[in-house]
Amino acid sequence: MTISFQVLKQDDRTWARVGRLTTLLGAVETPVFMPVGTRGTVRTMTPEEVRDLGARIILSNTYHLYLRPGHELVREAGGLHRFMHWDGLILTDSGGFQVFSLAPLRKINDDGVEFRSHIDGSRHFFTPEKVVEIQRALGSDIAMVLDECAPYPCSYEEARAATDRTTGWAARARSVEGNGQVLFGIIQGSVFRDLRERSTRALVELDFPGYGIGGLSVGEPKSLMYKALEWTIPLIPADRPRYLMGVGSPECLFEAVARGVDMFDCVLPTRMARHGAVFTRNGRLVVRNAGCARDFRPLEPGCGCYACRYFSRAYIHHLLKAGEVLGIRLTTIHNLHFLFDLVARIREAVREERFDHLRSEFLASYLTP
Amino acid sequence: MTISFQVLKQDDRTWARVGRLTTLLGAVETPVFMPVGTRGTVRTMTPEEVRDLGARIILSNTYHLYLRPGHELVREAGGLHRFMHWDGLILTDSGGFQVFSLAPLRKINDDGVEFRSHIDGSRHFFTPEKVVEIQRALGSDIAMVLDECAPYPCSYEEARAATDRTTGWAARARSVEGNGQVLFGIIQGSVFRDLRERSTRALVELDFPGYGIGGLSVGEPKSLMYKALEWTIPLIPADRPRYLMGVGSPECLFEAVARGVDMFDCVLPTRMARHGAVFTRNGRLVVRNAGCARDFRPLEPGCGCYACRYFSRAYIHHLLKAGEVLGIRLTTIHNLHFLFDLVARIREAVREERFDHLRSEFLASYLTP
Repeated sequence: MTISFQVLKQDDRTWARVGRLTTLLGAVETPVFMPVGTRGTVRTMTPEEVRDLGARIILSNTYHLYLRPGHELVREAGGLHRFMHWDGLILTDSGGFQVFSLAPLRKINDDGVEFRSHIDGSRHFFTPEKVVEIQRALGSDIAMVLDECAPYPCSYEEARAATDRTTGWAARARSVEGNGQVLFGIIQGSVFRDLRERSTRALVELDFPGYGIGGLSVGEPKSLMYKALEWTIPLIPADRPRYLMGVGSPECLFEAVARGVDMFDCVLPTRMARHGAVFTRNGRLVVRNAGCARDFRPLEPGCGCYACRYFSRAYIHHLLKAGEVLGIRLTTIHNLHFLFDLVARIREAVREERFDHLRSEFLASYLTP
Repeated sequence: MTISFQVLKQDDRTWARVGRLTTLLGAVETPVFMPVGTRGTVRTMTPEEVRDLGARIILSNTYHLYLRPGHELVREAGGLHRFMHWDGLILTDSGGFQVFSLAPLRKINDDGVEFRSHIDGSRHFFTPEKVVEIQRALGSDIAMVLDECAPYPCSYEEARAATDRTTGWAARARSVEGNGQVLFGIIQGSVFRDLRERSTRALVELDFPGYGIGGLSVGEPKSLMYKALEWTIPLIPADRPRYLMGVGSPECLFEAVARGVDMFDCVLPTRMARHGAVFTRNGRLVVRNAGCARDFRPLEPGCGCYACRYFSRAYIHHLLKAGEVLGIRLTTIHNLHFLFDLVARIREAVREERFDHLRSEFLASYLTP
């Protein structure tokens, strides 16, 4: 196995923990936030900027890179690290989520899923084996198995079918896994307790080095997401990293860490940035709104990020209104800095046995929409 | 006067020269290329990146900043340097060119020009005095007088009227010029020799510290532009900087320097970059074209810019096709690096008395479209 995971500190009031994920490329402390580089680039940022903000692992998308520029081209380029000039870790998702959310006209059976490209309508077929091969061509450090993500809400029957199919696919993916490739399973089960438990037990049986928790943050109430974590996580061996897929708002980070999650990815900081909104300790600020036009304060007074050190809300507002790229660059820098800083503070708090205190303190002033 | 200009070296075969423009903020060596930051930002770039590429002076647009965010807001922010976090020099154009090229429904008389905003259709009136005031609010280091740029082609009568009006406006602008503000005149005259001469003589009479050469690069054949420089420049005192407005293609830089031009600005490097094209020593390369999809060479083999050190044409092609901002950032970095490097080599060649050689060598391999 080319990956190892150690729990360095377990909180005694919650399930929060600090760990270390070690691969050939280096070590990453958990809980860790992975910014999303869908198409081989974290939107608007250079790799150096992403690293300087504190990222050591990013997520990239199998579905998108398979369609454009194509995984064979990335292989020819020497793999995704070299293609995009990123020397940290890369986790690639399986494309399952995108096939089910973006691609039109999909047809699924136990063998795999047929879909059309959302770019040019061309026809493609993903099997669990093929998705492992694609990720091998991309050369990511951590690959994910193909999964079927049931929509929310869905019937128990639908959820059960998707969950069992995902388990079957996980076994097939595990059997073609290559040398040096780390493959994580993905737990499904929608918001049904017995399905979550069945999925987790079956995947743990397959002994994956890490587990994605999928099918959450897809529209269900947050309370249900937290419940699903509580049903799932105790069944995962403590020495395996737990990765909550697609989650990344500050309030959810706290609640998920408290329930034992180690890894996160989310488009939220980059997507919010594109829409002219930023995180602050008091909640979201829409700097694109007219209220910021003559506001000469930084995005977040006291923040040490590049955007806050040198630029005012008024300037960033002006750039966003004028459609200038620098505006989105600055909001992206601030949002990523905010999340990396928050996760670093969470790790420190767990180590110092004051995670619960930090959580209450943060959530007391952070207004959620 | 808060600006001084010294000729450090005069070429003996051409009119090329190296000079030094000194202001309170520092000195700039000429010939100098000024990248364009139309709306208070050089497209896609941070100020640090622009400076690191070699820029010490940028151009920004009075018309655009007046309309959005408004010159009074920029004044409130502490001036444009502070608003945009730029510690080099700023030259602002007068807005004349934009009023005549962008704004709909303009009405001109000797008093000034009425126009509608291209953003919201609101009605505005520019006079030579008002344009000086606006630039004072912006706090630029070098301001330009309001001018009327006759279109190309135009009749002799039209050109004469625009030229004489520009001269009259220059006198009025000169009379309201404030302390600490450096104001350049703008020479017009279209492609008519006697008008160019008349305009130059009249403006020299007003004794400006520097002269813009306007009304060129507006669609006329290049040979006519070079002729206009040959008619104009000998009439400008040698101790005043000569600024050819809106010019910046590599081949034109050489020809204009050879005719005695000291300063340039042009949107070409940033605009080409947005359209997926880059300068190379052999001419333009459209990296957005399919031919680059599997080309793993850098944009320009041997180039030391950030884009060429770490990324392939194939990767940049992928980013541009996918609409990723990093693609335009990388082409912009390369294009600005290319021009700054070229102008630095031109200065060095003039100093070492081999400008003519460099020009022949460069133009022999640089294919123009």
